[in-house]
Amino acid sequence: MSTVTTPANPAAEIADAMRALEARYGTPWSAPLPAWNDTLDTLLAHRSVRNYADRPLPEGTLETLIAAAQSASTSSNLQTWSVIAIENPERRARLAELAGGQSHVRAAPLFLVWLADLSRLEAAGARSGASVEGLHYMETLVVGMIDAALAAQNAVVALESLGMSAVYIGGIRNQPEQVAAELGLPPRVLPVFGLCVGYPDETRPADVKPRLPQEVVLHREQYDAPSQAAAIAQYDEVMGGFQTAQGLSAAGWTVRSLARWRSRESLHGRDRLRDALSALGFELR
Amino acid sequence: MSTVTTPANPAAEIADAMRALEARYGTPWSAPLPAWNDTLDTLLAHRSVRNYADRPLPEGTLETLIAAAQSASTSSNLQTWSVIAIENPERRARLAELAGGQSHVRAAPLFLVWLADLSRLEAAGARSGASVEGLHYMETLVVGMIDAALAAQNAVVALESLGMSAVYIGGIRNQPEQVAAELGLPPRVLPVFGLCVGYPDETRPADVKPRLPQEVVLHREQYDAPSQAAAIAQYDEVMGGFQTAQGLSAAGWTVRSLARWRSRESLHGRDRLRDALSALGFELR
Repeated sequence: MSTVTTPANPAAEIADAMRALEARYGTPWSAPLPAWNDTLDTLLAHRSVRNYADRPLPEGTLETLIAAAQSASTSSNLQTWSVIAIENPERRARLAELAGGQSHVRAAPLFLVWLADLSRLEAAGARSGASVEGLHYMETLVVGMIDAALAAQNAVVALESLGMSAVYIGGIRNQPEQVAAELGLPPRVLPVFGLCVGYPDETRPADVKPRLPQEVVLHREQYDAPSQAAAIAQYDEVMGGFQTAQGLSAAGWTVRSLARWRSRESLHGRDRLRDALSALGFELR
Repeated sequence: MSTVTTPANPAAEIADAMRALEARYGTPWSAPLPAWNDTLDTLLAHRSVRNYADRPLPEGTLETLIAAAQSASTSSNLQTWSVIAIENPERRARLAELAGGQSHVRAAPLFLVWLADLSRLEAAGARSGASVEGLHYMETLVVGMIDAALAAQNAVVALESLGMSAVYIGGIRNQPEQVAAELGLPPRVLPVFGLCVGYPDETRPADVKPRLPQEVVLHREQYDAPSQAAAIAQYDEVMGGFQTAQGLSAAGWTVRSLARWRSRESLHGRDRLRDALSALGFELR
């Protein structure tokens, strides 16, 4: 079985690629292309979708997404993550409120809460009488969060390849203790983020959002700070145009992003995360 | 442009899918399949590759991977990540040592270090005189790490779809301050992990590693602790068989995993991560 596909029509593939890349940056693409395929199409076409069609997911969807998620790398094969699939409408409604009143958590047919899960191996240690001192370090929680993120992103790619859409819900960290209680989490399990899953409402399509110019995020050999300001100013123009097209005020990227970091209050309760981690049993030595 | 493909030969697609799923779990697959496609093939076929062919990457590969990475979701579009592409052999050799003497960091033609980058927006705040108090909270570093992980995983899917391979290098967190100095990182930028990229050496192929049974990581509605032990015991058998086939001792999963958490020393220096974060300018309020 080969996972590398050869395009049936290279010229059409390249035209698709250029369209996808230019939508992603809002500017012309100038680098050469090594090749193109359906998977790159899926990746480049990503958009966060908050409007879902009233259409159930096919049988076996959840299991297929989790198989994709489990295929992602995991540090030392420790698999320090879990996921809870929530379909019950009342529970989704409660989680929507806990995440800051996000109605799409209620509206999507499937809501996944991705967990950094140190409890599973801790319990295995308890069964066999093994010391699990390493569990109590900051590093171990970092591993769990990264494991969860890699797994979730594979699930997102999988579901988008199947014509479904998703949006990550960072608001699940607004009130982690209450989310943990709702989901019956044991100690040392952190809800890292949520994910709404469903078919997109094609009558209210989402657009591809342009990202920072590649030269801003990609550095060669060493970190390059000085060249970022000019490219960010250019991106503020691109985002201003995108915001105008969306019917928003053309504030650009810098102003809007800085508003998120303005103060402790602008973190919407997530300034409490360190206390919440302590309450959930993470020592973070 | 549609990113949903219809299989040319559904029976062959389903046979491919079953082979891929059974390799991923080392057990028969029993759930229904909603559909299958090349992207799911790519995701399921993932393996971490440490043996690379002596073959350069095509022109434009790096830019294509970064376009895929930037297409991943990012919290509030803040894009709190960067990546450094390292091709210089001497620098790769130094980073290989800093990561615990991992020779594949030297051997792969491209090494990417993924960064949680709070410095970019901080600098933008300094240019415009804006307060960036939110930067100093634990939550903000968590956002940066998740952003970096989602981006990196998209790059991994992209490169695997192009016939290349990769392995994540968590060892980049063994000595974060030294890595930061090597890469010229400003304060409040954390090297989250590395990634070796290259064509696999087909004479030394890597195998798909079986993962925990799906029922262990996937919970319905609420966390289910009691049912995990029996399924983990079954997985210990599967992993024992896999280890034997690899010429390793058949220790299973539980024993090997617990060895990683046995003590502070078993974290290989990463027990220092909290101190390192402080040295790198993260207050973690």
